Parts: sequence; structure tokens; C-alpha cells
Amino acid sequence: MNEAAILAARRELKEISKDEIADALERIIAGPEKKNAVVSEEKKRLVAYHEAGHALVGALMPEYDPVAKISIIPRGQAGGLTFFAPSEERLESGLYSRSYLENQMAVALGGRVAEEVIFGHNNVTTGASNDFMQVSRVARQMVERLVFSKKIGQVAIGGGGGNPFLGQQMSSQKDYSMATADIVDAEVRELVEKAYTRATEIITTHIDILHKLAQLLIEKETEKETVDGEEFMSLFIDGKAELYIS
Amino acid sequence: MNEAAILAARRELKEISKDEIADALERIIAGPEKKNAVVSEEKKRLVAYHEAGHALVGALMPEYDPVAKISIIPRGQAGGLTFFAPSEERLESGLYSRSYLENQMAVALGGRVAEEVIFGHNNVTTGASNDFMQVSRVARQMVERLVFSKKIGQVAIGGGGGNPFLGQQMSSQKDYSMATADIVDAEVRELVEKAYTRATEIITTHIDILHKLAQLLIEKETEKETVDGEEFMSLFIDGKAELYIS
Amino acid sequence: MNEAAILAARRELKEISKDEIADALERIIAGPEKKNAVVSEEKKRLVAYHEAGHALVGALMPEYDPVAKISIIPRGQAGGLTFFAPSEERLESGLYSRSYLENQMAVALGGRVAEEVIFGHNNVTTGASNDFMQVSRVARQMVERLVFSKKIGQVAIGGGGGNPFLGQQMSSQKDYSMATADIVDAEVRELVEKAYTRATEIITTHIDILHKLAQLLIEKETEKETVDGEEFMSLFIDGKAELYIS
Amino acid sequence: MNEAAILAARRELKEISKDEIADALERIIAGPEKKNAVVSEEKKRLVAYHEAGHALVGALMPEYDPVAKISIIPRGQAGGLTFFAPSEERLESGLYSRSYLENQMAVALGGRVAEEVIFGHNNVTTGASNDFMQVSRVARQMVERLVFSKKIGQVAIGGGGGNPFLGQQMSSQKDYSMATADIVDAEVRELVEKAYTRATEIITTHIDILHKLAQLLIEKETEKETVDGEEFMSLFIDGKAELYIS
Amino acid sequence: MNEAAILAARRELKEISKDEIADALERIIAGPEKKNAVVSEEKKRLVAYHEAGHALVGALMPEYDPVAKISIIPRGQAGGLTFFAPSEERLESGLYSRSYLENQMAVALGGRVAEEVIFGHNNVTTGASNDFMQVSRVARQMVERLVFSKKIGQVAIGGGGGNPFLGQQMSSQKDYSMATADIVDAEVRELVEKAYTRATEIITTHIDILHKLAQLLIEKETEKETVDGEEFMSLFIDGKAELYIS
Amino acid sequence: MNEAAILAARRELKEISKDEIADALERIIAGPEKKNAVVSEEKKRLVAYHEAGHALVGALMPEYDPVAKISIIPRGQAGGLTFFAPSEERLESGLYSRSYLENQMAVALGGRVAEEVIFGHNNVTTGASNDFMQVSRVARQMVERLVFSKKIGQVAIGGGGGNPFLGQQMSSQKDYSMATADIVDAEVRELVEKAYTRATEIITTHIDILHKLAQLLIEKETEKETVDGEEFMSLFIDGKAELYIS
Repeated sequence: MNEAAILAARRELKEISKDEIADALERIIAGPEKKNAVVSEEKKRLVAYHEAGHALVGALMPEYDPVAKISIIPRGQAGGLTFFAPSEERLESGLYSRSYLENQMAVALGGRVAEEVIFGHNNVTTGASNDFMQVSRVARQMVERLVFSKKIGQVAIGGGGGNPFLGQQMSSQKDYSMATADIVDAEVRELVEKAYTRATEIITTHIDILHKLAQLLIEKETEKETVDGEEFMSLFIDGKAELYIS
Repeated sequence: MNEAAILAARRELKEISKDEIADALERIIAGPEKKNAVVSEEKKRLVAYHEAGHALVGALMPEYDPVAKISIIPRGQAGGLTFFAPSEERLESGLYSRSYLENQMAVALGGRVAEEVIFGHNNVTTGASNDFMQVSRVARQMVERLVFSKKIGQVAIGGGGGNPFLGQQMSSQKDYSMATADIVDAEVRELVEKAYTRATEIITTHIDILHKLAQLLIEKETEKETVDGEEFMSLFIDGKAELYIS
Repeated sequence: MNEAAILAARRELKEISKDEIADALERIIAGPEKKNAVVSEEKKRLVAYHEAGHALVGALMPEYDPVAKISIIPRGQAGGLTFFAPSEERLESGLYSRSYLENQMAVALGGRVAEEVIFGHNNVTTGASNDFMQVSRVARQMVERLVFSKKIGQVAIGGGGGNPFLGQQMSSQKDYSMATADIVDAEVRELVEKAYTRATEIITTHIDILHKLAQLLIEKETEKETVDGEEFMSLFIDGKAELYIS
Repeated sequence: MNEAAILAARRELKEISKDEIADALERIIAGPEKKNAVVSEEKKRLVAYHEAGHALVGALMPEYDPVAKISIIPRGQAGGLTFFAPSEERLESGLYSRSYLENQMAVALGGRVAEEVIFGHNNVTTGASNDFMQVSRVARQMVERLVFSKKIGQVAIGGGGGNPFLGQQMSSQKDYSMATADIVDAEVRELVEKAYTRATEIITTHIDILHKLAQLLIEKETEKETVDGEEFMSLFIDGKAELYIS
Repeated sequence: MNEAAILAARRELKEISKDEIADALERIIAGPEKKNAVVSEEKKRLVAYHEAGHALVGALMPEYDPVAKISIIPRGQAGGLTFFAPSEERLESGLYSRSYLENQMAVALGGRVAEEVIFGHNNVTTGASNDFMQVSRVARQMVERLVFSKKIGQVAIGGGGGNPFLGQQMSSQKDYSMATADIVDAEVRELVEKAYTRATEIITTHIDILHKLAQLLIEKETEKETVDGEEFMSLFIDGKAELYIS
Repeated sequence: MNEAAILAARRELKEISKDEIADALERIIAGPEKKNAVVSEEKKRLVAYHEAGHALVGALMPEYDPVAKISIIPRGQAGGLTFFAPSEERLESGLYSRSYLENQMAVALGGRVAEEVIFGHNNVTTGASNDFMQVSRVARQMVERLVFSKKIGQVAIGGGGGNPFLGQQMSSQKDYSMATADIVDAEVRELVEKAYTRATEIITTHIDILHKLAQLLIEKETEKETVDGEEFMSLFIDGKAELYIS
């Protein structure tokens, strides 16, 4: 979700409804739906559980953005899509807390976790490759730039901009030592593993909702339809899960 | 097998038969056959066993793509060619499972394994050089991007694209520490060695079929013909091997 | 605060009043105020405490520059702004002492410290990202160029300019060994951690003034007004804090 | 011996005799003979033993290419030249076995070995510098690309071409870890040392033929003539050495 | 002091007096005096002691160049300036001994040492930043190029120019190993620390002259005047210090 | 001594006398004599002993090139010059033995050794800086390219040219591991230290000739004359030193 797109959307917030924005954003992000694409049953199941994993973890994370739409109709490169609707407040502030970023990593890993839980270790797929890149970037930024890591201490690594005293620029290249690089890697790994564990706990605890949601996605796909936030929420009400929606 | 070529082929799937696609792909990938090239008997035997190794391992891997054609008529740079026909389902999905990629590595190593088993340690040749590059790339991607490695954890290494929070790009250069680099190398090595061991087990167990297939390839080559999927399968039926064809 | 801007301001110091300079500088540094921007209450509180943290630490540091203005009206990228007014003497000299740079790091960290103290470990935000970069740069310069570090010794690292004896240039690239890089990183970390600890001590000791200042900032923001140096000082007089103003 | 030149030669193989090809290749590779160059007696002896070393090791290696011509008349940069004639079969196949490459390294080292054996440790010369570069390259390729090394395992190092699954290119730069680099270096060193030992054994065992050949080369040089394959072979028949000619 | 400027000065040495040269050099090196600049009393004291430190250490080093002029009137970037007059002999020879370079490092460090002794550890300033760079460069050259280090041995590190035997160029990049880099850094550090210790000893032993000189500089500055070599020497005669002037 | 200049000289060898060549080479290498330059007595002594050191070590090395001329009249950048006349044979062959390169390193170090022996550790000068660079280059080439090192083994490091089997180029960059780099550095250091020790032994043993030669150089310089090979040799006959002239 490109920040420029978010801001563009924000400026129009008063004139157009939330649904229209969501649609516009979807099209920008994922390309138009490919309703004529032939999708094998095997892939449908795989993508359905993958997207259901993202949605389920997102819905059960405290204070995370609510699910707006889940789709397994292919769009551009993506086999499916789970769309979260950040609150206006969140879009306004431009500030993200440590716990929000930790939740976001767990949500991104929810797809692979669902694959692993449902299809087993040997059958997880290359479909999580973009999720992992996003998680890796967020975790690395948390350690290197946002100084959310205890082991590295309060030292932002890397640099940019000008020095107020010497008028010198520091290069944006990594300028930390090999010992620091080892700590950074360990910290990044720890953050991601913690998020993976949280996603796994949520999915295994609420696996009945995962099955229902995947099933619903496959049924909807037959008619080239998607699951919206309300339909998604009703699964929870039926399933009597405790919900933490911000 | 270039993805663009696969997609191009996919779009025409309804109009032209599977055989025509296979031929077209072959020509794109390996260049036209060089039917007038003079090939020494020694090289014919070597290439025949090398290609037979690929085909045999591929046929005996669970859920791997079926063999469509095996040829030892030189084409472009290649001395021979074994062509697998991915199912429409597989081409559709664009998703590959961990076990599929592991099988693929074993298939790619089947050529060198056959050389080693038949001609001995000192007589293996430079002909497997491209196979090794492909295997190396797949294994490294599995560890670095697809996060199929337990030791590295759920951290995609390397990056790309934009960061949704800070609007910054991370370079696509390797940015992990030397300690992580050592783990990556060890993981890559383990994946490849496992695939090599599996290929060796299959080839030594079914060495009679390997001999029959190599012999058949040499006979066919005399008349500038190749072995197709059906002829290949009949060797198995004769040989009473258990087959795992997806 | 760009040095060129400081010098430009210095040349005009006799003709225009201090307030006008401060305004001019503000506009250059942070862009014009965005008085129409919609800011959520949550963000207002967060930014208010963040800026109050900078101001409080600055005011209670011995011999640091006095606070000229504190604002939580968004300007450009910044959610808020605390403006310190270096004395004419300081602008004149162009010289900064070790203790001034140490104070400056503590002031820059005051924002994040206030977030941590008020909102807790999990709710600190990405808003301190620029503060950390500034701190990191200052600390690294202190170790690498200004030779304020005992462990590295009196060896300026990196180079530039010409050699008076050999007429040779040394590259400006880092040319120290990996062992030295480890020491540099440890020294940088120690400097930053010391500053963080000092900022934390000041903020926890004077947390009542922090609350008052944040409250005042939120009230002023409602009328699109800011807190100036005099108003800020009056909070201290009320709070009976010991003040060390240079 | 440039591959393009070999291929060019191969296409004309039916029209022109082997001798003409050899001459053409020689001229391309080493430049025209410099028959008027003044060569000191000391250098003549040195070059004669150096070239005799190459030829002797080549002739006594099992299945290596036969010697076609030995010359100590300077050509271009080279003080002398030993020319081997790969069989048509070998040129055809484009495949080289592990043992062929190992033999080739021993042949390339034969020149320096002869210098060391005849003139002693302190008098070996810079004349072997190109031989060492060739040997180093072959050994490194054997370890990095051709996967002839047990310690590195079946992992081709470095990469190229495209990935069939992700459509990504890997850079051709070395991307292995420092631990792997140490193993690669050790493996390369072991391969070269083994070849050096083999060359030393052959030359010390057949030192009488080495002396005869060097003597013959010096005599021929006086009349600006060279030693061809048949003359070379006759030395062996006289010397009653066991010959392994492929 | 740029070598080109020295040579230019040398050519005119017979026609113009020493004073005129010194003035010309000063202007080239430091820019014209800024007699109208407003300098705070605090900065005046700091710069006065800093320059007095350079001059005092230089005057008391055996065989070092005599002091020609000391000024605390700002020029260009510099807050002050101490000018040494190398003997004609030294300018002629272009050769510098180990002890001369060691002395020069101590002289360059004299400024910071004086700051530390007079104003204390916490009040040393960024004003020594160029001094440290010069010292660092000289020390590194002594170790890397001039082979004045015992631990590195008689191996000039880095290279340039052509190789008389192989006609090859070596890059000017550092081509030594990490172990060597650690030794280089340790050697550089030792050289600089030794010089720092010597400067500290001289300044603490002769602190009364330091005070007198700083006082004189501040008085002269009021009338926009500087201290010349003779005035400087008279402080020593009064102070009865032992002088070692070359 | 640039190779191109040597070759240019070689082609004219039959028409012009050896003396004329030497003069021409001198002028090309070192620029015309600066007979009007004012040289201090101190520098004269220093340069005289430095050049005498080169000449003495060269004359007493077995099989090294004979001394043709020694001068302490400044030329271009050089304070003095010792010119050796390689035999025609050596120029012809283009081959250099291990012992010749080892001798050459000792000769190049002879200048600094003489400075150290005569003027003491603290008074050695920057004048040996080019000598060290030459020695460093030769030693590194011996280890990396010419494979004169036992510890590195028979592996030329770095590469160039084409690979006869794979048609690939290897970059000319260093491609060895850090462990290998440590060994290379240790080997280079050992070679240079051995040469330094040998030069020191020769100079301390024959210090009377060193004094005589330096004295003669200083006397000749007064009349702007130099010492030629014959005059140099007569010092030895007087001094009854054992001479090893090739």
C-alpha cells in the first residue's frame, strides 16, 4: 500500500464513500480482477486458506485494522487479496506504534502459517514470497531505523540528511561493524519468529473459523464474488470467537 | 523454461494441441535440432546416460511432471534434452510447493548422478555445469526468498519494493551479516546434498531401466529420432518399476 | 538546522529582531504551518508529549540553548516542533563542546523517552525516527571525527584534504579495520545510551511539568496557537523546578 | 586455445589437412615466429627445458592429447610453445572429464617443474606466470562451477541465467560466505598441488627423455626448426618409456 | 601548507624577504583576516589557549621549525592560526625524518591538549577536528607508506606506478588482509597516543608560559594584532624555559 | 625502469654505445639533472649514504646487474640515483629468476638500511618511500602471480585471459578468501624482511666502503659530477672486498 496512494485517497475522503476508496485502492494495488482466468481446484483451496490466514490473524489481533474484503479472484500477479481498512485516525497520524508493526508482521505471516497448518510442511508454496519480503523489511526497519530493539540500543543505524554541526553528509550505506550486523540479524530473526509464533497460535486456536472462511471464499469464487467485512464478521459471531477489533 | 514462454504457451492452450506446444517450447529453449552434427560414440553414450538420468529421476519422483520427450540429438549448446510437461494445473497456479522444488533439484542432478554411477568418479564431465547452476539457484532462492529453511527462520533475506510505513526502498543487495551468510551457505548445501542423495538412490535402484533407456536413446539417435513419453513409460511397464506419476 | 541558514541569519542579526529570525528559520526548516490539517486526538496527545519531552530535557540540561517555541501544529512532514534559540555567542563561535553535544543528544532523545514513559513500551511510535538519525550522526561524528572517545584514542578516523608531506589525498571512505569498527560501534552505542539514561532521569523526575506542558500544547492547538519561551518558563516557576538555563 | 578458433578449425576439418590447421592455430595463438630474434644460450636452455617439461608430462598422462609440435623459437610474448592436438572426438564433444582437466593442469605445470628439477629452487623464472594463471582458472572452475569438489558439495557457486520459478536473475558476483570462500581456496590449492606432484613424479622418473628433448630443441633452434610429434615420439621409443597416448 | 605553495615561495626566496613570504603563505592558506568579526570572550579564550598549545609544543620540540606568528584573529574557517617557518634547508630537501613527523604530530595535538588541560574533559571542543585529521593522515602514512612501523615490517602497503618486470599496475586500493588492517590500526593508534602524551607533558610542565601566551594573544587581539616569533621567544626568556630550537 | 624504454633501447643497441643508452634511459627515467639546485649539506650527506647503500648492496649480490652510475645531483623528484646496467642477455630473455628478484628487493632496501645504520632509527627519512613501494610490489607479485611462495602453493591468485573450456573470463579482482589473504600478507612480509636482513648484513660488513663511496659522491657533487661504474669498482679493489659481479 503505497503512501502516495493513501494520501491521494485521504484528500478525497469527504466526497466519496469508503467503499469507493477501497475499490480504487484495490485496483491501484492489485490490478483489475481477472474474472475469466481458469483456476484449478487445487490452487483455489490453497489461495483460499492463504488469504483466510491473513484475515483471521488480522481480525484477532488487538487494535489492528478491520478486514474490508477478502478475495481469491486473481488480480495481476496476486492469486488472492485480503484488504484491511486502516482507520481515518491511523491514516491521519502517519505514526505507527511498536505493537501495530508487530501485529502487521503476524498478519503478513498468517498466509504461510495457514498453508503449513492445513497442507503440511512439504506443501507450503512460493505464494508467501512477497509476504516474507514485507515482513523482513518491516522487521529490519524496526531494528535499524526505528530503534525498537533493545540489543542494538538507542542507535539508529544508517543515516541520511545533514549534520547540524559539521555540515557533512553521511552516506546512506550501512556503516556498522560486522559484530553489529550479527546482532541486527539476530534481532530481526527474533522479531519475525515471535510474529510467526503468534500467528500460529491464533490460527490453530481458531481453525474452525479458518475452515469456514476458506470454504466461503471457494463458494463465492464460483460466482466471481468476494467476501466483505460484514460477511467475515458474521463468521466470528457464529463461531463465538472473542474479537479484538479496534 | 522461461516464464514468459510458459505464459505465451498458456494463452494458446485451447487452440493448439499439447504436442505442438511442446515442440514450440523445445525450439525456443534449445534451438533447432542439429541433425547433421557428427557425434562420437563416446559422447553419444555419455549424453544418453546423462539424459536418461534426468528422465529416470523425474519419472520416479512423486507428483513430478511427466516426461514428454528425451533426445540426444544436439540442439544449440546442449548435447541432449529431457523435456517434462508440467500439468495445465501447475502452469495455471504459478505456485510451487517445497516438495516440488526439492524434486526438481533431484531431477536436475540426475544427469551427473548417472554419469558418476556409469562412468565413475574420474570420468564425470563438464556437461552437468548448467544443471548445477539451476540447482544452486533454486536452493538459494528456497533459503533466501521462499523461507523454506528452518535455520534461517521466517526472515526473507534481501528485499525489494517499497516500505509501506517509511516510504523507503531497501537495496536489493544482500544485507545480511557474515554469520547469516554462513548459515545460508550451509542450508543451501544441505538442500542440494539431500537432492543428490535421493537422485543417487533412485538411479542405483532402477539401474536396469537406466541402461535400457540409454540404449534406446542411442538406437533412436542413429535414425535421428527421439524417445517420447509413451515409449519411455513402456520401459517402466516392462521393468515393473513402481511408478509415481502425478 | 542547516548551517547556511544559521550564517544567513547571523549576518542580519543587527537589523531584525530575534523573533523574526526564529520565524524565518522555522519556515525554512519545517515548512509553513498546516492549520487546516485534521489531527486525531490520539495523535495530538502523542505529539504533545513527544515535543514536551524535547523541551523539558532541553530546559533542564546545564548550559543548553533556551526553548524559543513549542508547537504541535503539523508543518510539512513534522507532526510538531520544538525550537531552541542558540545564543549569539554560540552561533558566533562555531565551536561546540563535548558536553554541549552530549546535551544535544539527550534533548533529541527526549521525545521518544516521553512516549515510553507516558504510553508504555509497546506504544512508542515511528515518530522518533528522525531524532534517532540525528543522534546517531552526532554520536558517530564524536567518535570518528572529533575524537571525543577514549577507547578509539586520539585518532581521527576517515580523512580528507591533502597531506602536507606527500601531496597525496586519502579517500574519504572508512579505512579502519574490522576490530576498530567494532570499537567505534560500541563507543557510539555507549554515548547514545548515556544520553538516553539522562533524558529518562530528567523526564521521570519532572513528570508533573511534562503533563502540564503537554496539556498546554493540546489546549493551544485547539486555537491553532503555540507555546513560546516565556509561557514555557512560567510552567517551571509554577512547578518550582531548579532551572539551569545558560 | 580459444574455443571460437577451435570451432572455426572444426568446420574446415574435412577440407584441409591436420597440419595446416595446427599451423593456423599456432599463428593465431602465439603470433608469427620471430626467427631473427637473438636469444642467449642461457635463455635457450631455460626455455628448452620448460617446453620439454610440458611435452613430457603431456605425453605420459593417460588419455591426454598427443603432442603435435614443440618449439623454442620466440613467438610474440612467448619464449617457446608446446602444441597439443586434441582428437576430433574431443573437439566434437565439447565435454571434458574430471581426469582430463586434472591432466591438463599437470601438463601446464610441467614447465615450472622442469625448471625446478634442472635449475634448482632459486633459479625458477617468471616464465611460468601464464601457466599458473591457466591452472588457477581451471582449478577454480572445477570447484566453483563444475562441482568436481567433494568438500563444497553439489552446489555450483556463482550463478547466471534466469530462475524458472521466480523470473529473477542472480548476479554473477560471488555470493558465498567467507567460510565457503575458505573451503573453495583450500580445494583449489589441493587440486593444484596434486597436479604439481604428479608432474614432478613424471619428470623425475623420465629425466633422461627430458634431457634428450631439451637437447634436440636447442639443436633444432640453431637452424630455426622445431620438433614435431613424430620426432618427439621417437625419443620415447629410444628411451623405452611406457607411453599412454589416447 | 600546500606543497605547491611552498615551492612557489621557494622560487622567490632570493627576491622577497621572509616576512613577505610568510604573509603570502598565510593568506593563501587561511584566507584574509576578518578584522571586523565579532568574537565572544569565551571563544577568544578558547582559541587563545588552543593556538598557544600548538606554539608551545612546537617551540619545545627538539629540531622542530621555529614559530613565526600566532594569531587569534579569525581567518576563513579558522578561528586562529599558528604559523611555523620551516628552515630553507628543510624546504630544499623535501625529506622528513621519523622524528620530525613525530614532532609534527605532537604539535598538531597541542591545541586539543591545551583545551583539555585548561577547560577540562567536558569542555574540549570541535575546534581540534582538523588537527586530528592531519595527525591521523600523517600517522597512517608513516605506517602504510613510509614503513616507519616495526610491526608491519618493511612492507609498504598499497601501491602505485608500474612493475618493472611484469608491466602490470597494481591498484591503489588497500590490498592487505584483515589481520594486517588490525595491526595497521593498532600502530597508528600507538603513534598518535605517543604524540598526545608528549604534548601533554610539555604543556603541563610549561603551563605558566601557556597562560602568558594566551593572555598576550587576547590582549593583542583587542587591537587586531598578532604575536610574532620574537615576541613569542621573549616569553620563554622571561620564563627561563629550556629551549630547543633547531 | 619502464619496459617500453628498455625495448626501445634494445632495438638501437647495435648502433649506439652502451654509455649513450644509459644516458638516454637516465633522462627518461629521472628527468634532466638540476645542476643549479641548492642542496643543503645535511641533505647531501643523507642522499649520498642512501645511494651508496643501493650501490653497495647491488655490487655485493651474486649475479646482480653491475652498477653503471651513482649520482646525488637532484633530478626531477629524485634526490639522487643509482643506475644498474642489466646485461644484454637479461634484457633479451625477459625472464627473471627467483634469486634475481630477491636480490633486487635487497638492493632497493639498501638505501633505507644505509640511512638507519648511519643516522639512526629516529633519523631515517621519507626518501625511501618509492623504494618500499617497488619492493612491496615485487614481493606481492612473487607471491600472487609468480607462485614463488610455498605456503600459498602452486596457485596463481587473480586471473586474466580466457578459460579454454568454458569460454568465461574471470575478473582481475582478488578473488581469494580472507584466510588466503592473511597467508599472502605473511608471505610478502617474510620475503621483504629476508631482503632487509640481507641488505643490513652487507652494509654493516662493508661499512668502510659505504663511507668512502658516500664521501666520493659528496666531493663529486661539488663539481656537479657523478661516480661511474669504474670509479665505483676501484673503491672495492682498494677495500679488498670480495666481489660477486655477474
